[in-house]
Amino acid sequence: MPIKSRIRTIPHYPHQGIMFRDITTLLKDPVGLRLTIEKITNQYKEARIDTVVGIEARGFIIGTPVAFQLHTGFIPIRKKNKLPAKTAGRDYQLEYGSDRVEIHVDAIQQGNRVLLVDDLIATGGTAEAAVKLIEDMGGEVVACCFVIDLPDVGGRARLEKSGYEVFSLCEFEGG
Amino acid sequence: MPIKSRIRTIPHYPHQGIMFRDITTLLKDPVGLRLTIEKITNQYKEARIDTVVGIEARGFIIGTPVAFQLHTGFIPIRKKNKLPAKTAGRDYQLEYGSDRVEIHVDAIQQGNRVLLVDDLIATGGTAEAAVKLIEDMGGEVVACCFVIDLPDVGGRARLEKSGYEVFSLCEFEGG
Repeated sequence: MPIKSRIRTIPHYPHQGIMFRDITTLLKDPVGLRLTIEKITNQYKEARIDTVVGIEARGFIIGTPVAFQLHTGFIPIRKKNKLPAKTAGRDYQLEYGSDRVEIHVDAIQQGNRVLLVDDLIATGGTAEAAVKLIEDMGGEVVACCFVIDLPDVGGRARLEKSGYEVFSLCEFEGG
Repeated sequence: MPIKSRIRTIPHYPHQGIMFRDITTLLKDPVGLRLTIEKITNQYKEARIDTVVGIEARGFIIGTPVAFQLHTGFIPIRKKNKLPAKTAGRDYQLEYGSDRVEIHVDAIQQGNRVLLVDDLIATGGTAEAAVKLIEDMGGEVVACCFVIDLPDVGGRARLEKSGYEVFSLCEFEGG
């Protein structure tokens, strides 16, 4: 488990009862970073990906080297009001309240085959909003890639039930 | 100017009178992303860099593929209260008020040769705080790399006056 063993667990962060999976210990290790990026790019190097989309902020860290290795460009999906040009957005529900992801309206070309990348999938709320936003823009989501899957929380099942391919590098039990 | 010509200028963002230099148009272009990363890595491939540090959030986008190409790990410097484990921080002044950058205390090893990466240098306030923070942790800053330099605002001169090497891929006039 060369990837999972490099991920640090921080109990009760950011809230009591949450086991936070910290990928900074994976990324600061040259072998950890290399394996992470190579496992994703090896999986999708034949998939004719046109562009890689990463979700702010840890999805930027994983997504950009994947884009570089796949010889594509990189497109950021950001939180509300962070992108400077004209955006489209999707709201999604959190446990308490709601949040919003946005993308530049001119970022994705009609018919682009998109690889969506983030560090972790939990409930899948953010990922689902990002997927819909990519489709709103005319993109086709080839797969959703995550370093970490928390299968007990159900996000992977939710995306797969909607017909999306999900690829993750490791799993942790619980939430 | 294969890099500069791919950067979009958005007038009066985020405030009246500011010409915002938007690198998303550079990054979404496969050639733009490739040239950006290769120009930085070619400059420092013989510099025995131990680790690449990127500043949240656009510094993550540039810094991680640079780390991957230099066969190093990647370490994030983030805004206040974003990192999950024990951090050290540095406050710095903004035009109005102050801000803070933080790093995990166990991220940098004593004597590590560090390449600092961000998208843009303006006044240099954030970069100077990041440099000091890296030195607080025992790291040696080999150079500070930016996609964009705004020389009229003085950040590059400020860092160079303090003895730091600054490398940028293009310059824009004004602020």
